[in-house]
Amino acid sequence: MTEPRSPLAGALALAAEIRAGRRSAVSVVTGAIADIEVRDTRFNSVTRILGAAAVAQAEEVDRAIAAGRDPGPLAGVPFGVKDLFDVQGEVTTAGSLVLRDNPPAARDATVVARLRAAGAVPLATLNMDEFAYGFSTENTHNGTTRNPHDPERLAGGSSGGSAASVAAGMLPFTLGSDTNGSIRVPSSLCGVWGLKPTYGQMPLQGVYPFVASLDVVGPMASTVEDLQAVYGIMADAPLVSLPVVEDVRVARLGGWFASNISTELTAALDAVMTHLGHDRVIELPEVARARASAFLISAAEGGNLHLPRLRRRAMQYDPATRGRLMAGAMLPAATFVQAHRFRRWFRAQVHAALAQADVLVAPTTVGIAPRIDQPSIIVDGKTVSARANLGIFTQPISLTGLPVLAAPLAVEGMPLGIQLIGAPGSEARLFAVARELESAGLARCTPLAAGFAAKDSPC
Amino acid sequence: MTEPRSPLAGALALAAEIRAGRRSAVSVVTGAIADIEVRDTRFNSVTRILGAAAVAQAEEVDRAIAAGRDPGPLAGVPFGVKDLFDVQGEVTTAGSLVLRDNPPAARDATVVARLRAAGAVPLATLNMDEFAYGFSTENTHNGTTRNPHDPERLAGGSSGGSAASVAAGMLPFTLGSDTNGSIRVPSSLCGVWGLKPTYGQMPLQGVYPFVASLDVVGPMASTVEDLQAVYGIMADAPLVSLPVVEDVRVARLGGWFASNISTELTAALDAVMTHLGHDRVIELPEVARARASAFLISAAEGGNLHLPRLRRRAMQYDPATRGRLMAGAMLPAATFVQAHRFRRWFRAQVHAALAQADVLVAPTTVGIAPRIDQPSIIVDGKTVSARANLGIFTQPISLTGLPVLAAPLAVEGMPLGIQLIGAPGSEARLFAVARELESAGLARCTPLAAGFAAKDSPC
Repeated sequence: MTEPRSPLAGALALAAEIRAGRRSAVSVVTGAIADIEVRDTRFNSVTRILGAAAVAQAEEVDRAIAAGRDPGPLAGVPFGVKDLFDVQGEVTTAGSLVLRDNPPAARDATVVARLRAAGAVPLATLNMDEFAYGFSTENTHNGTTRNPHDPERLAGGSSGGSAASVAAGMLPFTLGSDTNGSIRVPSSLCGVWGLKPTYGQMPLQGVYPFVASLDVVGPMASTVEDLQAVYGIMADAPLVSLPVVEDVRVARLGGWFASNISTELTAALDAVMTHLGHDRVIELPEVARARASAFLISAAEGGNLHLPRLRRRAMQYDPATRGRLMAGAMLPAATFVQAHRFRRWFRAQVHAALAQADVLVAPTTVGIAPRIDQPSIIVDGKTVSARANLGIFTQPISLTGLPVLAAPLAVEGMPLGIQLIGAPGSEARLFAVARELESAGLARCTPLAAGFAAKDSPC
Repeated sequence: MTEPRSPLAGALALAAEIRAGRRSAVSVVTGAIADIEVRDTRFNSVTRILGAAAVAQAEEVDRAIAAGRDPGPLAGVPFGVKDLFDVQGEVTTAGSLVLRDNPPAARDATVVARLRAAGAVPLATLNMDEFAYGFSTENTHNGTTRNPHDPERLAGGSSGGSAASVAAGMLPFTLGSDTNGSIRVPSSLCGVWGLKPTYGQMPLQGVYPFVASLDVVGPMASTVEDLQAVYGIMADAPLVSLPVVEDVRVARLGGWFASNISTELTAALDAVMTHLGHDRVIELPEVARARASAFLISAAEGGNLHLPRLRRRAMQYDPATRGRLMAGAMLPAATFVQAHRFRRWFRAQVHAALAQADVLVAPTTVGIAPRIDQPSIIVDGKTVSARANLGIFTQPISLTGLPVLAAPLAVEGMPLGIQLIGAPGSEARLFAVARELESAGLARCTPLAAGFAAKDSPC
């Protein structure tokens, strides 16, 4: 189903080519544009190609190289952003009609500006569930994003365009946001690497908000090395060294996180734990309540954010988000307060678990991507909506604000993924485990075709 | 109306007498009990006298002194607590019927334990609005607390028993809690010193909660010196030195805080500012919204706390709190979220004002204590309930979590008070200004008769 990844597929590898003068940034960018124009008709992951601005920036990179100036570690590397990151001169729509008449962003979101300063070139805005409220990237206005590994299946969401464009090999890395699982779920279903950094660590200036108590932004990429480099630039704090993986105590989450998953996923998790040499299983208490609390907090804070606009322009909202936001705004305050009280309690329980282990391993989704014509999954024997339920393993972890690295398992057929969960600020440990799994061949991302890296444009 | 304060009225002065062996702790405690039994029939400030336990502890103090052991800086000094502080062996009722069948507290609240360890003797629990939800100490179950300066008038609330027992001279100091003004309002109406410390500074272990986002506990006393000493023991961090008052930049709050107040209060504020030598007036923005936000947060968080019990035992609640708690629980979550979002904005505005001045001066209430048979005040020309509205100048400040020292003005007739408001953790500056106002005769507390300090018991 997939072909082996090209040696040029990675962002850092591509930047090295460009910095060395073996490729021009302009040729990479125009090649990537041409590739997206041809191939994204199948995936619907890109909502806008930022052609002229990207080519102009690529020309600037080429001029810097010609003049002997340092063009930055990601020189000339094209990337895409979920359409809730401000890109200077572009309207940030958050996947909605409601924001389409807003003025263009006066400046880049902070993390976009940092990447641009490192030489990377914003090339595309990417599809998403409207206002990031969903796990499936079924967008009434823009259409559904299709999974590059099987276009009849969902890409997952809400950062579905971000995951699909990396999985297709159209972009070497992308940015997404994760409130309840919106980076991890599509990373898992599309088979790419994704990182949800520690809550509060990444600047959110210029990012269209959803749930202030949960929102985090992070990168998606096709190699761990790229993911780590992009993360370091976004955080303005490169990870200069990783711990030795043998020093990282790993445990597997049982109970809730061992239920509803396929035999294949269980076997892959077994193989990961065996390889890492750890057999501890930890069971967190009250996970169902944790998920419910994340749901309630999302609905209420999202509802608060949108209420003034819902009062005036409700019918412009996607039917899939409208009712949920309205209902969230009207939740009884006592319920919302209780969800936050529970959150404090649950966070303490998870921190107690993290005294036993440095990294907790859990599945990201119950199984492979659902079919688009049958957008549902089975949970506890019941058929439930994929859009609302693909996050059953990611939402409870969101409630705690912990960093999570989503790793694509090296399985046959459709992708499956796991979460590597750590204590706040322990991203370096997650990367150490991820690198080990990648180099051991237990986890890998295999983009369809690295169109952006092709010497000759495919059109 | 009041007689000059006895030189023995203060807690520290009394402790000095006891420590020096000139009075026994037992004589002080039994004298105070006798005084309360006789005089509190007029004021209804005490809900329970903790007689046997207090006498036993006083005996222990006397034994320590006889044996040459240090009995602590507050040796043998009786004090009272609003009936929401745990006192070992007593049921904490929070002024309700609902909690009356609870088991007795297994241990003292942390701040009570600290005072007891300093030699002070818990002698009485004190009346309050049920669950601290009111500004008037009109309690359906325990009756209304009367103002010692005019028993036909309210003492204010919700820590009304705490203020009235100090104002009457029945106890040298007491503890109260302040969510929206519950220490400051009764301190002002009864003419005693009170302190609402910085939010988050005082341990709340063993204190029956009301609104987690706003609750603070603090002392009330008849001298600044006592207030400071008790505060230092409660915080387990004595203030060893105060700044020079000339170095403290003082400003007066205008706008909202200059409206609705009497000519007499305005004149007293003028005199304070003139004496301190500052003429800066600062106007805070959106104070009405700040007050509304504090109202909404209180209703919702209080409602969340009580909802499980309201579902089972609503009719045991005071009619004055029942409906407000139920309505609060059912507030739309979006409204509650908005109140917290506004809170962050308003706090930033107040911090900007605090860059201009170290201490902000504002009235505590619009005027003197309302009559019990006419429990209302006039705000913007409208007659409104005293119970809900006496806090119009204290609630907006509560929203910010700043420390506030409530100072009783040296006025003729019924007491009036002001708030000295500082940056978080700047209690020492507030005490410096308070000491200056007290020593200059601009502020003073004149308890009716220091019954606890009398050589001979009045009965």
